[in-house]
This record gives sequence, C-alpha cells and structure tokens, in this order.
Amino acid sequence: MSSSKVAASEQTTLDLEHARRTASVDVVEVRKYLYDGQKQWEQHEAIVRVLSADPVFDKSRRYNVQLAQDVFMTRSERFNRALALMERVFDLEERLGWSPTETADAWNLIDDGVPINLHNIAFEPVFMSQGSESLQERYGALVKHRGIIGCYMQTELGHGSNVSALETTATFVPDTQEFEINSPTLTSSKWWIGGLGKTATHGIVQAKLILPDGNDVGPHLFFVQLRSLVDHTVLPGIRIGDIGPKAMGGWANMDHGFAHFDHIRIPRGNMLSQFAEVTKEGKYVRPPHAKMSYGGMLYIRSGMVTSAGWVIAKAATISLRYATVRRQGNKDADGPEQQVILYPSTYYRLLPILARAYVFIQLGRQLTSTFESTSARLAQGDTSTLAEMHATTSGLKVLVTTAATRDIETARRSMGGHGFSAFAGLGRIYAEYLPAATYEGDNFVLDHQVVRAALKAYHALKASSGLSADQLSPSSRYLRLLIAPQPAPPSLSSPSAWRDPDTLVLALEWRAAFVVQAHAQSTGSQDANAAQRVSNAVTEAFVATQVGEMIKNLSGSSLAEQDAQVVRQLYTLYLLVTVETGLVDLLSFGLLPTRSYEGTDNLKDPAHDLRAAIAGVCSQLLLEAIALSDAFGYTDWELDSALGVYDGRVYQTLWERIQSEPLNEQEVTPGYKARRLFVYDIFLFSEFFCEQKYIKPILERGRRLAKKNGVKL
Amino acid sequence: MSSSKVAASEQTTLDLEHARRTASVDVVEVRKYLYDGQKQWEQHEAIVRVLSADPVFDKSRRYNVQLAQDVFMTRSERFNRALALMERVFDLEERLGWSPTETADAWNLIDDGVPINLHNIAFEPVFMSQGSESLQERYGALVKHRGIIGCYMQTELGHGSNVSALETTATFVPDTQEFEINSPTLTSSKWWIGGLGKTATHGIVQAKLILPDGNDVGPHLFFVQLRSLVDHTVLPGIRIGDIGPKAMGGWANMDHGFAHFDHIRIPRGNMLSQFAEVTKEGKYVRPPHAKMSYGGMLYIRSGMVTSAGWVIAKAATISLRYATVRRQGNKDADGPEQQVILYPSTYYRLLPILARAYVFIQLGRQLTSTFESTSARLAQGDTSTLAEMHATTSGLKVLVTTAATRDIETARRSMGGHGFSAFAGLGRIYAEYLPAATYEGDNFVLDHQVVRAALKAYHALKASSGLSADQLSPSSRYLRLLIAPQPAPPSLSSPSAWRDPDTLVLALEWRAAFVVQAHAQSTGSQDANAAQRVSNAVTEAFVATQVGEMIKNLSGSSLAEQDAQVVRQLYTLYLLVTVETGLVDLLSFGLLPTRSYEGTDNLKDPAHDLRAAIAGVCSQLLLEAIALSDAFGYTDWELDSALGVYDGRVYQTLWERIQSEPLNEQEVTPGYKARRLFVYDIFLFSEFFCEQKYIKPILERGRRLAKKNGVKL
Repeated sequence: MSSSKVAASEQTTLDLEHARRTASVDVVEVRKYLYDGQKQWEQHEAIVRVLSADPVFDKSRRYNVQLAQDVFMTRSERFNRALALMERVFDLEERLGWSPTETADAWNLIDDGVPINLHNIAFEPVFMSQGSESLQERYGALVKHRGIIGCYMQTELGHGSNVSALETTATFVPDTQEFEINSPTLTSSKWWIGGLGKTATHGIVQAKLILPDGNDVGPHLFFVQLRSLVDHTVLPGIRIGDIGPKAMGGWANMDHGFAHFDHIRIPRGNMLSQFAEVTKEGKYVRPPHAKMSYGGMLYIRSGMVTSAGWVIAKAATISLRYATVRRQGNKDADGPEQQVILYPSTYYRLLPILARAYVFIQLGRQLTSTFESTSARLAQGDTSTLAEMHATTSGLKVLVTTAATRDIETARRSMGGHGFSAFAGLGRIYAEYLPAATYEGDNFVLDHQVVRAALKAYHALKASSGLSADQLSPSSRYLRLLIAPQPAPPSLSSPSAWRDPDTLVLALEWRAAFVVQAHAQSTGSQDANAAQRVSNAVTEAFVATQVGEMIKNLSGSSLAEQDAQVVRQLYTLYLLVTVETGLVDLLSFGLLPTRSYEGTDNLKDPAHDLRAAIAGVCSQLLLEAIALSDAFGYTDWELDSALGVYDGRVYQTLWERIQSEPLNEQEVTPGYKARRLFVYDIFLFSEFFCEQKYIKPILERGRRLAKKNGVKL
Repeated sequence: MSSSKVAASEQTTLDLEHARRTASVDVVEVRKYLYDGQKQWEQHEAIVRVLSADPVFDKSRRYNVQLAQDVFMTRSERFNRALALMERVFDLEERLGWSPTETADAWNLIDDGVPINLHNIAFEPVFMSQGSESLQERYGALVKHRGIIGCYMQTELGHGSNVSALETTATFVPDTQEFEINSPTLTSSKWWIGGLGKTATHGIVQAKLILPDGNDVGPHLFFVQLRSLVDHTVLPGIRIGDIGPKAMGGWANMDHGFAHFDHIRIPRGNMLSQFAEVTKEGKYVRPPHAKMSYGGMLYIRSGMVTSAGWVIAKAATISLRYATVRRQGNKDADGPEQQVILYPSTYYRLLPILARAYVFIQLGRQLTSTFESTSARLAQGDTSTLAEMHATTSGLKVLVTTAATRDIETARRSMGGHGFSAFAGLGRIYAEYLPAATYEGDNFVLDHQVVRAALKAYHALKASSGLSADQLSPSSRYLRLLIAPQPAPPSLSSPSAWRDPDTLVLALEWRAAFVVQAHAQSTGSQDANAAQRVSNAVTEAFVATQVGEMIKNLSGSSLAEQDAQVVRQLYTLYLLVTVETGLVDLLSFGLLPTRSYEGTDNLKDPAHDLRAAIAGVCSQLLLEAIALSDAFGYTDWELDSALGVYDGRVYQTLWERIQSEPLNEQEVTPGYKARRLFVYDIFLFSEFFCEQKYIKPILERGRRLAKKNGVKL
C-alpha cells in the first residue's frame, strides 16, 4: 500500500486516498440519506458555498486578527466579529432572497454563537406563540425582521433550575393599567441572558406576577423594552451589562448579560397573555393547562438532538481522518508505522462516536416532526401529547448532550498531543458545546423528571389490571414487559444473540423495566445515584426502540442494499456499545447469566461474547469509516481543523497555521530586554508607558550567581 | 438555622459559617496530616503570603489587563506576564534566600504554566543526571542558577509516543570530533517543546545517534545551544518559533515551540554521556541498562500523582463551598430552599472527589519516597527496582490524570450555569490540567505497558511452581490470590461487608486477578477495550492496597481518634466508589452473587447494598465536607474562584468581578453604529482604519422590511 520511501508528510494524502478508494459505500447516496434527500443537501451546499467564499466568515481571524499587531483576538473583538457575522447574514438573506430555512442553515453554519441566536430560538417563538393578538399586530413584523432584537430573560443570579423561585416581580397597578417590573435583590438580577449585554433592544422577562391584592400567582412572561430605538442607550431604571468571560474560552463572542430593574413600568398589554391574563380590574384568568408555556422549551430541546448529532459528526470526521493519516508505533519490516486507527483502543473509541452521530441525526429528524404535530395539537388546545413529549425530550436532552460532550473530548484526546493545539479544532468545538449540558435544564436536574415520569407510568401500570401494551406511550413502551403474563427475557448466552438488533433492543428494554421496578420497590437505604441510573436506562430503552425502527426502515429507504448493510452495522454498533454500558444492570438482574466463582482455573467472562461482537462490528466498519464520515458533507471551512483536512495534509496545514502566531513576528521576544512600549489612543486622549524586561535580567542574575560559585564564564 | 428574612446573598455566609461550626474535625490537625507536619504547612503558608501580597502575582490581570483599554489579555500579553512572574520568583528567591524546596513551592503556586517549568522538571534533572562530568563542570552552575535557560526537546511533529521512530539525527563526525544535528523532514521538526518558542537558550535534543559507519543506534540526548547569550537571537542553522494557541485557552502563556535544525554542529562532549558514549574513534559504548534514561520520566510521573491530588483538592474545595451556599429547589414551609449539597445526586458526585484528593496526596508522598530510593539505587548502578517503578508509575499516571480531568469537570458541572463563568475558576484549571492526560505518555498508550507488565507477572507466576506471595512485587501482589491452594474470595453478600475496608481491598485485588487471568486465557475474538479494562483493574488493586495501608497508618498518625475516624471514612468511600466502577467485573466473575431471572415480581439488586453503603458513608461525611476541604489550606488567591470564596459571598464576588469586563466600559457598544477606529503604532510606523457598524444597520433594515409589510412605525 505504501513504501517507506514516502515522507511521512506526503504519506498522509495517500492514506486518505486509499481509504476512500477501498470503501464500499457510496458517499453520495449515504449523504442523501443523512440529509433526507438530494434537494436538501444541494440547498445546504449552496449556503455553505456562499458563506465559505465570503471574507466576513473567514475563520482564521478567530485566532489572529490584524486590527492591531501582536494581538490575538480579544473578547471585545470577537464580539464585534459576531456582530459583523450577523449583519452579513441579514444582508445576504435580503439580497439572495433566502427562505427562513436557508437563513436558519446559515446560522447553524456559523459555529460561533452569535447574539441573535436567542432572538431566533427563544425570543421570537415565545413571542409569536404567547403574545396577545394586539401585541403581535404591533410588534410581530419587527420581531420577524429584526427591527427590534430580543432576548429571553429567565435565569437570575440566584436561580436557574428552580423557575418557581425566581425573585423578579411584575406587580399589576390598576390605576395606570401597568405592570411594575422590579428586581428586589442582588440575586434577582437577570443573569446569563444571551444577547442581553450589548445587543438586545427588548426582552421577554420572566417575573412573578403579583396581583393588586398582593397575591403571587407565580412566574409569567412580560415583553419589556430595554434600550432606546433611537440611540441604543439603556432605558431609565434599568441597569444592563455583560457578565464577563466564560470558561475555556467558550462563547467568547456572545454578550451574555445581566439586568437589574428598578420599578420600571410597562403597559398591561405587554404581558404575554395568550394563555394567561390579568383583566383591567386586576383579576387573574388562569391558563387551561399549566404546562402550556413549556412549548418553547420543548422546541429547543428537540433541536438539541439534531445539533448533538451534527456536532458529534464533526468530532467523528476530524478524529477519524487524523487517526487514518497519523502513523505511530508498530511497523512492518520495510513499511511505514501502523495507522493509529488500526489500534483496537483507537477504533473502539472512535467508531461508536460515528455511530452515535448517525443515530442522533435520524432521531432528531423524527423528534422534530413529533414536536411539530404536538405543536399543531397545542394550537388546537389539545394537550394530550404534551406530557409524553416533555418526558421524552427531557431524557433525550440529557442523553445526547452528555454523549456529545464526552464524544467531542474523546475524539480530541484520541488525537494525542496535536489534539491540544487550538488548530486541531475540537477544543473550540468542545468549549462552545459544553454549556448544553447545563442550559435548558441542568442534566442532573432533568434526570429527576425522567425518573418521576417513569415511576408514574410504572405505578399506573401496577394499579390498573387490564392495561395492554398498546395503551403505553412510546416513552414507557418497555414497561409492557412487566405486564402479566410476562414474556421470557431474550437469551443472551449465544454469540449470535449479539448480532441480532431485535435482541439488543429487547435487552435494553428489559434492563429499563427491571431498573425501574427495582427502584420503585426499593425501600430504606437508598442509592444516591439512582436518578441518573434510572433516567439513563429508561432513555436508552426509548432510543434503542427507535434505532430498531431505523434499522427496519433501511429496507424501504433510498439506500442500495450494500450501503444499507453498512449503515445497519453502524446502528448495530450503537446498540452493542449501549448494552455494554448497561452491563452492570444486565448482570445484576440475571439477564446475562453468570456463574458463581467455584475455584475453577478456567474463567469464563459472560460479557466476552458481547465485547467480541463489538470488536467484530468495528473491524468490519473500519474500511468504511472515512467514507461514512465524508458522507456528513463537511467542508474544510466548516471543520476548521488542521488535523481534519479533507486531503490529509495535516502536517503542512499545522505548519502553515502556526505562521500566523503573533509571537512569531519577532525573533527576539519583546520581553527579553528593557523596552519602552508607547501606546496612544486618540479617542481616549490618553497614553500609556509600559516597561518590559524579563529574560535578560534572569540570565544575568544566573551568570552572576554562577560566577559567585566559581564558574569561569 | 436561618430564616427566610435573610437575603439569599447574605444567607451564603451564614451557610458556610454553620458548616464550619458544626463539623467535628479539627481543621488544623487534619491540615498538618495533609502537609506531613506543621512545619511544612507553615513554610508553605509563608510562601503563599509573599506571593499573594505581591502585585506581580495578581490574578485578576489574567482576564483583564489595563495595558490598553478594551482589551482582554492576549496570548502575547499572557506570555509576557509569565516572564514577569518568572523574573519575580527569581528575584524573591535571591532576596529572601529561599531554599530549593521553597522556590519549587512558589512555582507550584503559580497556577499558570511558566516557560521555566520545563527547565525545572526536565532540562535540569536530565542534564544533572546524564551529562558527563566535564559538561556539568562547565554548565552545571549556569543550569542551576539559570544563567542559561533550557528546554527538553523530544516530541516531533510526526512522533510523540513512539520515541524510537524520531527522525532527528545526530551524526558523529570524527574529523572534527563533532555531532551534526539535522532535521531531515518537515515531520522531524521538534514540536510542543515547552519554553522553546521564545525563552530557552539551550535545549536537550533527543536524536537518533548515527555512527560513522552509518549505524543508527537509536535515540540519545544532546546538549545544544539555541540562542545567543549576547542578544538572544537564534543561532545560525536553527529555525525556532511558537506553535500557536492551545485548545480551550489552556497553557496560553507557555511558549511551546518548534525547532528545525539544518546540519548544525556541536562538540562531541555535548552528548549526555553518563550512560552511553561515542569514543573519539566513533565507537559506541553501550549503556549497562537500556532503561537507564527513563529516570527523568519516572521522576515526572511520580510528581504527577501529587499534583493530581492537589488539583482535585482545588476542585473539591470550590465545588463543595458553592454547593453548600447555593440553595435551589425543595423548600421548607418558611425557610430558604435546600442547599444543593444535600441532594444525593450532588454529594454522590462531589464527596468521592474529596476522597480522591486525600488518597492521591498521600499516595504521591509515598511514591516520591519510593522514587528517591530507586534513584539512590540507580546511582549505585542497581537497576533492580526500575522495572517495578516503571510499571507502577505508568499505571498510576493513567489513573490519576484520568481521574483528575474527570473530577475537575464533574465539579465544574455540579455548579450549574455559573460553573461556566470564567470567574468560577474551574474552567481554567481544567484547560491547564487537561494535557496531563497526554504528555509523559498518552494514557491509552501507557495502558498497554501496564497490561504487558501484568501479563509478564502472570505468566511468570504460572510458569514457576513454588512461587510464594512475598516474592511478588507490590504492583503484582494481587496475583498471590491465584497461587494454589487458592484462598476463597471474600463474601460480599452481607451489608456489613461493605463497611470493612479489608474486604473492599480484597474484592479489588480479586477483581484484578480475575481480569488478568481471563485476559491471559482469552483466545480468538478479542475485546477491543481490553487494555484499558485490564490496566484499570490492575492499578486500582495496587492503589486499594495502599489505601488499606493508609487506613491502618491512621492509628499511628498525629491525628486524634475522632479526626482519624473521619479520614478513615473518606478512605473507605474511595474504596467503595472504586468497587462500584468495577461492578461489571465483580458480577461477571461471580464475586458478587446474582440470581438468574426467574420471573419473580420482587427483584433483588445484588449491588443494592454497595450503593446504600456509598450513600451511607456520604451522608456521614456531609457534615464534615467543608472542614475537610478547608484542611487543604487554600487561600482565595490560590483558588481564584468567585464561587469558591472562603467567606461564601459568591454573588457579591461574581458581581464585583464582572465590573472589570471591558465590554461594560461603554453603555452603547462600538459595534452599534458607524465609527472610525484609528490605531497608530509608533514602533511599526503604520496606521489602520477600521469601520464598525453592525447593530444599527440590522435594526434599520428590520424596520424597513417591517414597514414594507404594512407595519406602522
């Protein structure tokens, strides 16, 4: 395949070419499958072409901007860049006549957060679904076209998860037909609000509604103007600012803000009153369904499954390409060293990541359509599917964000030392993605909601005598296994069991049923980690069922049988590794038979066949891995990774990128010897002097001390 | 305990005071135990006092430096700051007459990497242990006093883990009695070398030694001058630079560098020839023991156990304090909400972190003394303990760095949204620590070395008939369990078993023995993850034995019985959660009895008692957690975390810190409307114009489009 005569830096290109040549899958066809049709792919590709050719979207500026010499991009500069990106997208949208779908795609392609995101995913949908008709008449078009820019103000300094304890108040004042919005304490300051710091002109404020009789009827939403539309200054009585830098350099160009309200007034009509209202007389009219206002959250959480799929796809593409071109260690007599991807400890880590990307992309598509039908029902006042949607999205939100953060970091770490270079790209992707584990419901808090829903379904099942399997909602379908007469669990003792997706799905459903049952029956001393364990088992059972369906649907898909077979293996790998993470439960509840230790000298590991099956599927997928990740369709511009370049020229690309490092502009660093640095700012009419002298004095001191110790210099 | 009348932002101080008042442990005594004596603590505290009072070490400058308005600290500025820190430490060392231990402590206290680190931990020890006597005579004092600054040049662009494949060559030239150092390819460029980019004047270069007959005798070390000692310019034939920014903003102030050598010459005496030499005639004199040169690596890896302990201690201190003052969710009728630490899903995550900090700190101390005795033996030419030391440190390096990265991030995530603020501190600690999983041996590569050593010991045991337990080295002591007549495994079926540390240690040893045996016996289809599984089981068994010893040693320690009892519980918690992570193995090999599923309606989870034991120990430790973390002795300056402040004023501190955010200097951000920004650099005699206009045009376009759609404005 290659000779030792080829330089390592050239071999990389040959390695990727070889991987592409020897793969069996048709990348174009699989890509069509992933994008749900050739038309969708082409539309997406057209947007990518426009953005990637536009200097405004040049990503190399993220690390090094030429605004000033020797300056890496600061947060303020990155925020300005984000504004420039926003302005440019709106400009392109108008000039090229993009549809809302196309513009949404453009926002997705900007892999830096931009302040408008929260307008798009929270402010606008909540305004449109919950604002009164008259409010929408007045502001709807402005919201839609960004004649005003909004943010969604829920979280406070003192409260995130527990919305019911928010401290901001909205007191109705009958005399003037106004609400008075107030922040009574330091901890009631709105905090972590995306787009609030410097950008938004308006906000939807979540505040406790206080009636004239002093009655507190809990959190409601209010439409509040924050800044002047004439000169963008902050309106009187409001204090607004940015909450500062974020961990690991993440979200650096987002102006997450705080806001403090000092008894400011808004008209009565500014309460979002589609589902709850205060009459002119100050009477509260209750909503028909208490959870009505969760619609927005469901929308965001559904979208998070899709975005988790695509971000994992990026991690898979970059890490698989690098593992294919990086050679290290074992060596044939005359050939180059072994490709890193061929080491079991590498492909065992990376191929399941590839599988999860495929599963979550499909799952997200399906969830979005479920959300749309739930929304349509809600619009008709039908709340019957809301609880189910809530239970499903809570569990999935935890599952996919936990998986995605872990997978991005696993992929980064698989790239060894170079994975820690900013130019590898995955560190940035990780830092930008990480907060997903916390926002829209902290994962550890959401776990409890999943457990509550599972216990409710379990107790309902136990309480009713004649319940049949088809009366169970999709999220609790696994509980059918507990309906008498109980079926027998699948046999997992033959190696062939691990090749049958139906058996794997069933094993995961049994696991969930037993874990929930054991949790429901447990009394006295508790397991402190029960919530996480139960939530995970239940959600994995739900996903497994969906993966079973995906496998069945492959037959009717556009894919040729040969390609479908490869994707089927990928889905099977998903199930296998999920079963492996559930081994403790499978063993604990006797689903996987063990033997008591009997002093035998020949041990049989009951999980051996499962592990061998994982290794077996992995080694079949190895030949297809590059093609399967090419099918995600990512361009080099999208990946922005020196280690994930399509042509495999990783070493040259790393070399080229470090040339832009400002520290490399001078051979002798300014910190070497005394030097006066003079900075004059003509806007601030001020000047600075700064003395720098470090390395030379250290060396001089060292020589002096060495001399004192008798060294001749 | 507190009334609802207290503002949430004041309640936090009361909560920490209450936690300190109600704890039973004596913080001063436990601190003495952790620091191995009151004298050590006082010496450490004195250094902390000096540094924290010195404006050079002010940490607020890390996020916001006033060199120029509206500029967060750039990489170049952070590098300059690192040089300033270095210079100041040397200055203080000389003026205050610090001992080497005290200076080392100062370096540890600077929680940003500084370029001198690699001089201290790699360049100097390797030079001192492997340089010839004449080389040491000439340069030793300079090295010691930093009259020259060194770096350790091993990794190349193309090779990290596989040292034997490094491409840099050192060819002996008998005519001139020189070595010619050369980088024949792009991929042979030295890369990732700490301190090389801008600081170091000299380097120890690892290069393949080529003899005059063309024979390649593998990698050896050479002392090479890189920069002029007169003006710091790079010497002819060498190209040097910085390799650019790192992931997640980590190591921003380290000048990791690259170097490319174009046939440069160094004297024959510059080969580090303590253990291998080239004679004047070009004859190679072999080292007595091939692993002799690994001494430096063992030293670094030993130190990594201690540093992992202390970094986990930081994560524990910050997250436990915040979880104690943060209140969210459940609420008594009249009281405040529940402290987050009281939720099982929180303390289940945080208390084991506290336990690992204690264990690793003790383990590190013990390992350092083992290293010292191994070194003393080596100096006498006795290599008998080297292989054991190598096996132990490889496994421990993987174990502690994997645990520490995970624990820091778990702690950060436990703090919810505010945990993602840079001011929470843990994001920075994570990014700075993360590379430890990769450097000094990528964890996934090291796993294989642990497995190799374990299999070697296993086969030796099987091959010999009369081997007795005390002939086994500490790292393979668990294998005694396989020596016939085999003892019976411990019974784990009663709840009391989980309260006995000896039983827990034994369970982990049995697990290791069985996992190794099963792996040795496995044939045919393999487990792709075997290396990680075996390595973890083996190393955890070793650590468990040590923890068992730590528990025994508590009786003879300076601790009063009451304090010892609490620390004993902490160590027991370590063992319990370790057993929990090994449950799959315990269940698989019948160490924990399960029942086959028999359709029973009443499930018994065999792991229930273990989980209940964990929850039980945790709830006993809850009252002591703040005191146990106070005992680490961290000051607010060291933690640099708004959420981990000693007095609990987390909300006020967050509020104070965001005031320094440059974006908050102007009410209307410069990106709102057209504005000319003029920058003039008097050194470069150049000027820039930059137009910024983003938000206003977006709003204007929005209004225009809304108007077109019939909205009256």
